Amino acid sequence: MRYLTAGESHGPQLTAIIEGLPAQFEVTKEMINYDLKRRQGGHGRGRRMQIEKDLVDITSGVRHGKTLGSPVALVVTNDDFKHWTKIMGADPLPEDIDPEEIKRQISRPRPGHADLVGGMKYGHRDLRNVLERSSARETTVRVAVGSVAKALLRELGIHVVSHVTEIVGIKADPASIEGKSADEIRTIIEEDACYCADPEASAKMVEAIDAAKKEGDSIGGVVEVIVEGLPAGIGSYVHYDRKLDGKLAQAMLSINAFKGVEFGIGFEMARKKGSEVHDEILWDEEKGYTRATNRLGGLEGGMTTGMPLVVRGVMKPIPTLYKPLQSIDIETKEPFKATVERSDACAVPAASIVAEAVISFEIAKAILEQFHADQLPQLQAQIEELRAYTKGF
Amino acid sequence: MRYLTAGESHGPQLTAIIEGLPAQFEVTKEMINYDLKRRQGGHGRGRRMQIEKDLVDITSGVRHGKTLGSPVALVVTNDDFKHWTKIMGADPLPEDIDPEEIKRQISRPRPGHADLVGGMKYGHRDLRNVLERSSARETTVRVAVGSVAKALLRELGIHVVSHVTEIVGIKADPASIEGKSADEIRTIIEEDACYCADPEASAKMVEAIDAAKKEGDSIGGVVEVIVEGLPAGIGSYVHYDRKLDGKLAQAMLSINAFKGVEFGIGFEMARKKGSEVHDEILWDEEKGYTRATNRLGGLEGGMTTGMPLVVRGVMKPIPTLYKPLQSIDIETKEPFKATVERSDACAVPAASIVAEAVISFEIAKAILEQFHADQLPQLQAQIEELRAYTKGF
Amino acid sequence: MRYLTAGESHGPQLTAIIEGLPAQFEVTKEMINYDLKRRQGGHGRGRRMQIEKDLVDITSGVRHGKTLGSPVALVVTNDDFKHWTKIMGADPLPEDIDPEEIKRQISRPRPGHADLVGGMKYGHRDLRNVLERSSARETTVRVAVGSVAKALLRELGIHVVSHVTEIVGIKADPASIEGKSADEIRTIIEEDACYCADPEASAKMVEAIDAAKKEGDSIGGVVEVIVEGLPAGIGSYVHYDRKLDGKLAQAMLSINAFKGVEFGIGFEMARKKGSEVHDEILWDEEKGYTRATNRLGGLEGGMTTGMPLVVRGVMKPIPTLYKPLQSIDIETKEPFKATVERSDACAVPAASIVAEAVISFEIAKAILEQFHADQLPQLQAQIEELRAYTKGF
Amino acid sequence: MRYLTAGESHGPQLTAIIEGLPAQFEVTKEMINYDLKRRQGGHGRGRRMQIEKDLVDITSGVRHGKTLGSPVALVVTNDDFKHWTKIMGADPLPEDIDPEEIKRQISRPRPGHADLVGGMKYGHRDLRNVLERSSARETTVRVAVGSVAKALLRELGIHVVSHVTEIVGIKADPASIEGKSADEIRTIIEEDACYCADPEASAKMVEAIDAAKKEGDSIGGVVEVIVEGLPAGIGSYVHYDRKLDGKLAQAMLSINAFKGVEFGIGFEMARKKGSEVHDEILWDEEKGYTRATNRLGGLEGGMTTGMPLVVRGVMKPIPTLYKPLQSIDIETKEPFKATVERSDACAVPAASIVAEAVISFEIAKAILEQFHADQLPQLQAQIEELRAYTKGF
Repeated sequence: MRYLTAGESHGPQLTAIIEGLPAQFEVTKEMINYDLKRRQGGHGRGRRMQIEKDLVDITSGVRHGKTLGSPVALVVTNDDFKHWTKIMGADPLPEDIDPEEIKRQISRPRPGHADLVGGMKYGHRDLRNVLERSSARETTVRVAVGSVAKALLRELGIHVVSHVTEIVGIKADPASIEGKSADEIRTIIEEDACYCADPEASAKMVEAIDAAKKEGDSIGGVVEVIVEGLPAGIGSYVHYDRKLDGKLAQAMLSINAFKGVEFGIGFEMARKKGSEVHDEILWDEEKGYTRATNRLGGLEGGMTTGMPLVVRGVMKPIPTLYKPLQSIDIETKEPFKATVERSDACAVPAASIVAEAVISFEIAKAILEQFHADQLPQLQAQIEELRAYTKGF
Repeated sequence: MRYLTAGESHGPQLTAIIEGLPAQFEVTKEMINYDLKRRQGGHGRGRRMQIEKDLVDITSGVRHGKTLGSPVALVVTNDDFKHWTKIMGADPLPEDIDPEEIKRQISRPRPGHADLVGGMKYGHRDLRNVLERSSARETTVRVAVGSVAKALLRELGIHVVSHVTEIVGIKADPASIEGKSADEIRTIIEEDACYCADPEASAKMVEAIDAAKKEGDSIGGVVEVIVEGLPAGIGSYVHYDRKLDGKLAQAMLSINAFKGVEFGIGFEMARKKGSEVHDEILWDEEKGYTRATNRLGGLEGGMTTGMPLVVRGVMKPIPTLYKPLQSIDIETKEPFKATVERSDACAVPAASIVAEAVISFEIAKAILEQFHADQLPQLQAQIEELRAYTKGF
Repeated sequence: MRYLTAGESHGPQLTAIIEGLPAQFEVTKEMINYDLKRRQGGHGRGRRMQIEKDLVDITSGVRHGKTLGSPVALVVTNDDFKHWTKIMGADPLPEDIDPEEIKRQISRPRPGHADLVGGMKYGHRDLRNVLERSSARETTVRVAVGSVAKALLRELGIHVVSHVTEIVGIKADPASIEGKSADEIRTIIEEDACYCADPEASAKMVEAIDAAKKEGDSIGGVVEVIVEGLPAGIGSYVHYDRKLDGKLAQAMLSINAFKGVEFGIGFEMARKKGSEVHDEILWDEEKGYTRATNRLGGLEGGMTTGMPLVVRGVMKPIPTLYKPLQSIDIETKEPFKATVERSDACAVPAASIVAEAVISFEIAKAILEQFHADQLPQLQAQIEELRAYTKGF
Repeated sequence: MRYLTAGESHGPQLTAIIEGLPAQFEVTKEMINYDLKRRQGGHGRGRRMQIEKDLVDITSGVRHGKTLGSPVALVVTNDDFKHWTKIMGADPLPEDIDPEEIKRQISRPRPGHADLVGGMKYGHRDLRNVLERSSARETTVRVAVGSVAKALLRELGIHVVSHVTEIVGIKADPASIEGKSADEIRTIIEEDACYCADPEASAKMVEAIDAAKKEGDSIGGVVEVIVEGLPAGIGSYVHYDRKLDGKLAQAMLSINAFKGVEFGIGFEMARKKGSEVHDEILWDEEKGYTRATNRLGGLEGGMTTGMPLVVRGVMKPIPTLYKPLQSIDIETKEPFKATVERSDACAVPAASIVAEAVISFEIAKAILEQFHADQLPQLQAQIEELRAYTKGF
C-alpha cells in the first residue's frame, strides 16, 4: 500500500491516490468527512478553519460503498480557489497581464517554515511557490487517507485513537485514560475543546491558548496515538528497515511541525533502571501471552507484542506569529519582522487527528505487506488465524 | 544508495552489501576498524566485548583504496564461531546426532527482547533462532556501513560526531560542547569512558554504571548526533515521505533498544512559546543566510537549513538483567525468572557509535538521491556549486 | 520520480499524480491534450473514441505554466459518467433500489482479459468491478503523464518518437525512417492513418484493419520507440536492477495487451554471429565517441551509449471480438460465446502513443535518479557538462 | 523479498544477501551447487569454466538446513584470487610499488561491453575497473539466489525449468516438449550438451558452436523458462507497475547480453488474428477453470491464469571475439582491433540457467508480496486455500 498527495494551499483541490488496498471493505464519504471535520476543530484555530468546510469526493476505487481493489482517488475541493484563479492558475499568464493582478508575490521568508530553503532548492524567488505546498493544508488529504486506513483496520478489530497529552507544559493526567478502551477515550475527547481526556488539564490548556493568542504568540504540545487490537508480530526484527517503530517514527515526523517521537514511556527510559522499564511476560489459558505492564508501548524487537501500541509526537508552536521574528527579504537583503499569513495560536488538537491518520496508514500498510490479502474476507480470516495461533504458541 | 546486512550473533560472519556508492572516494579497512573499535569500547561493557575484537574485510567494490562504483561488501568474521559450528551451522544435522550436541536450545523468552514474538512470527520454538539475529551484534556491521558513508561525507566537507548526553538521568551540561566543532567534540569524547563531553557528568555516569552492575540492573540514556557542514536543501517539503527528519527518525529507531528521537530542543518545544522556539534568519555578505539560534536542530520543512543538524535518540536499559524479570517458558507454560545471556550494564556509549553510523548513512543517501553523481569529483563540484548558489540566493 | 494513476473506465474521472519533478520547466494543458488526441486517433478505432474527446486538467504542481517542484495532479474527466452515476457511483446503494437500475452486472469473463482471474483475485462476482479498471481506458492518463515527461526531456535536448512498424504481418520498410530525425519521423507519421512511416505498408495495414473489422476479428502489431539526444551513461551495469533495458522492458510490458519487447535488432540476434551484431566504436575530434552501426539499439551494459535508443513492443490483437471465443459463465458454469464490450479492430497506432509515453517517463525518471536536480536550470547545466565530459573522455 | 549482489570477476569472492525469505523451508549447499554446476556446463564454454569450479557457502540465515527468516548470505569464493591479490586488492597500494606489478591496466574498450560507457560514467581510465563488475561472472551468485527461490517454490508445488529453444537460427521443435512436465523436460535437457530438449536440433547447435569457435566468432540464441503449478492471480491489473509480465521482463533483461523478452507465442501475435491468439476458457467440476490453449503464456491482465507460465529471452552473441571488432584506445584515441579477454563461443546454455534463476526469484517475490507468510507452513496453507478457492469460484 502506498499513496501520493498533490495540491497547493490555494489551488483548486487537494488530491490523494491510495494504491494497494484490498477489495471488499466499506468506505464512504461520511467516514472521511467525519475525520475532516475533527481536523478543522479544536480550540485555538484561526479564521480560515471556520469559513472553509472540507468535504471529500471519492472519484475512483470505490463502487457502491465497497473498495474494488483498484486505486482510490480522494479529492477535497478548495472552495476559495475562485478568488485565486489568476494567482494560482496552472495556465501561462497572458503576455500583457497587469502585474498587479498576479499580486501576492512573496520575498520574505518566515523563520520556522520551508520558505527560505524551499525557495533556494527549487529556484523560486516568489516564495509563494514554496509555502503553497509546504502549508499544513496538505494534511487535510492525509487525514482523508488515514480514514480509509482506519476503515480497514476496524474490519480487522483494530482501533486507533489519538488525544492531546500536553500543551505548553500543561500535562493531562495519565489516569484520565487508564483502563479505558480506544472507543471510550474517543467518546471523551470528542466533547473536549482540546481533544484532551483530562478535563482539568483541558481547561488550563484553553486558558493558555487564549493567553498566547492575546500575546500574538503560539504554543505547541504533545499528542498520543493508541492502537488497540493489534495481533502480535507486525513488523520484524530481521532487518533494520523492517522495524515497525522506525516506520511509525518516520510517519510521525512527516507531519508538519513535528520534531520528536517516542514509544511507551519514551525518553523517561533514560532515567530509569532496566528492572523498572521492561514488561514482564504472563500467560493464562484464556488470554494466552500478555504483559504485566506496557512501558515499552506495545513494541519489542520492532514488532507488535499484542499490547496496545502507544506512540507520542511533539509539535512545535506554529511558526506563524503575530509577535514577529526577524528575517531577511531575499530581494533587498534587508532585515524585516516576519509577516503573518494565518493565525492559529495552537494547532495541537488538529494535529492529533493528523497523527491518528498517519499512524493508521502505517499500521494498515504493515499488515498488508505481511499478509496482503487481495480481499477483506481472506485478510480477516488470516488475522483471526494469527490471533488463535499466537495465543496457542 | 541502499544496504542489506546478514549474520547471526554466533554465526560464522556478519556481512553487509552497500549498493549505489559513487566511484573514486577513499575507503580503507583502517577507517572502518577505527569505528568498530569505538563500538566495542565505553564503560559498562561485558566480557564478550573484551575477548572479541572486530575487524573488517572489504571483499568487493573497493580497489587499491578507492571505490569502484560497484557494490561494496563488508565482512566481519566471528572468531568465536569455531565453538559454535554444530550449534549454528547451516548444514542439516546428521540423523544420528546426539541431541546433547545441539544444546543451547532456548524456550524461555526474555522480556524486552524479540524472543517471544519473534518465535511466534517465524515459527521458532527454539528461541535461539530469534535471538541470534535480533541481537545487537548486528550493529557491528551497521557501524562498518556507517564508516563508509562518513568517508564519503568527509570528502564533501560534512562531519558527523556523536556523544552521550544522558545516562540514567545524569545529564551532560550543554555548555560542554558549546562553540565546539564536530572534530573538537570528537577529540574530547574519545578520551572519555562514557563518550561524554562533560567530564563531571561522565564521572557520575561511571559511578551509576558501576552501581547498576553491582545491583545486577541495567541503565539507558540519550545520545546526540551532530552533523556539520551540510548544504541547505537536503530533503524536501514537497511530499511527506521525502522529509529528511522522517528518514533520520526511522534510522534512529532502527537501532536496537532505541525508543524515541527528537530534533533540536525536541520535546522541550511542547513547553515553550513560538517566539522562544523559532530561529531568526540573518544574512551577511560573507556567510550568506544564517540563523541567530539553532533550536530547530538544523531542519525546517523537512530540509537542512545549513545550520548543524542535531538529533537525539533515547536508548532503554538493556533488557538482559542479572536482576531477573518474570517470564513464561513456552514449552511448559510455567513462569520463570528470565535468564541472562550477556551482561552489559550499560551500552549507551557503544550505541552512540551506532547512532553516528546510521545517521551518516541516511545523510549520504539523501545527498546521493538528490545529486547522485556517479563519481566523487563530479559530486564534490555539485556540492560546491550548491553552497555558492545558496549563499548568493 | 514516481506516479500513481486511478480511475475506472466509466467512473467520473481518471487521475494521475506525478511526484519528484524538478521545478521551473514548462508544462501546459495544450502539450498534454495534443498527445491525448493522438491516442484517440489511428485507423481502426471504434465508436467510443469518436464520441469522447479527452481533455486534461492540471490541478496542482504547475503555476503560470511552470512546474513548482511539488506533485503534479492530472485529471481527465469522463463526460459519459453522467449516464453511469448509479452503476458506477462510490456511494452505497439505497436499501430499496430496484435491481434493474444497477444493471450491467457481468458474469461472463472474456478470454484474453483480466476478467476471470481478476474476479477470483479480488472476490468480485460482478466482473464489471474488474474490467472497469483493467480497461485500456487507463492508458489515457498514462499518456498525459508521458507528455509531462517529454516536456522535461525536450528541455534537455532529448526527443522521443514512436511509430508503427508492423500490423498483422505487414511490415514497414526500415528504409522509411533511415537517416531521419525523431522530429522528421513525427512529421511523417502524424499524417498517416496508422502512424506508420512507410506509406505503402500503411495502405496495406488500412486494408487489413478494414478486413479484420468486416470479419469481426482483431489484429495486433509492433510499435517502435526511438529516443534521440540521450547522453551516454544513463542506467548502470553495477547492479542487475539498475540496467536501463530492464526498466524500459517493464514499462513496455505494463501496457495493456503488450506481450514482448526487444532492443535494437532484438530477436534477430539469435540468428546472427557476434561479428554481425556488435557496433564498432569510432572516435573523432568533433563528435567524440560514436558507433559505426546501432544494432544494439543504443544500450550497452544496461547503459545508454549516446546512440539513439531503439525499443520495440508487440501488441496482441485486442481480445474483444465480434467473432466470439468460448468462455464460461461464472454463475451458471455454462459455456457461452464471449460478449463484445467494444469494438476496436486494431489499436496498434493508439498503443504506439502509449509506448512513447511510458518510455519517456522511464527515461526521465532514470535521468532524475542519476542527476536529480531540483530545478531545470541546474539539471540542464549538468547534462551539458556530462555531454562535454564524455566527448572528451 | 529483495537481494543485493557484490563481487568483481577476479576479486576474492562473490556475495549475495537475500532479505525477506520465510522461515522453515529447507535450503542446502547441495541444492545451490547443483545449479552452479549447471551454469558452468553446456557446450561452447571456454577454458575458465573448466578450471574453476564454483561452490557456495551459506554464512547466515540458515541453521541446520532450514531458513531462519533472517537474511541469507551466500558466498562463492574465487579460488583464482590468490594470483590477483595485488591487481585487485582492496588495500591502497604502497607508495613505492613497481607499476609493473599492477599490470593489466586496460585502456581499450570492447564493443558490445560496458567498458567504454562504464569508464565514462564512473571516471575509470583503467577500464578493468568496469569489466571486473560488468562481467557475466556475477551471474554465478544470481544463480545461487535463484536456487534458494526455487527451493521455496518447490515446497509450494511450483516447478521451474529452462531450456534452449534456438541457437544461431537453429530452432528446437516445439513438439519436443509438448505434453511434458517441467520435471520431464529437466530430465531430458540435463543430458543434453546444449540444454535443448530436441536432440536433432541440439546436434546441429553443437556443430554451429564448433564452427563459430573455429572462425573465432560467437553466436547467440533463445532460452525459454516454464513455470508450472502457479496458482491463478499472482500479479495484478490494478496498477501498471504491479503486472507480473513487466517484472519478469525486467528480470530477463537484467541478464548480461539479453536483448528481448516475449511471453507465450510472443512476437508471433503481431502476425495473427485475435481469434487465433486468445485462449478459450473451459470449466469442469474436477479441474475448475482451464484454457483450451496457452498462447498467452499463462498471463492475462498481468496475472497468472493457472496455466504454465512461458517466457523467452534472446541472448546476443557474446561480444568477446577472436574475430576482432574495431574500437578506440581511450588514451591514444587510436583505433585498434578489440582484445579478447575470454573465449566462450556460445553461452546460451549457461544463460538458460541464469534465466531460470531470475524468473524463479521474481515469482517467489511476487508470491511473498501477495501472501507474505513469515513461515512456510502458513504460506503453504494459504496457497492451498487459494487453489481450492479459485477452483470453486
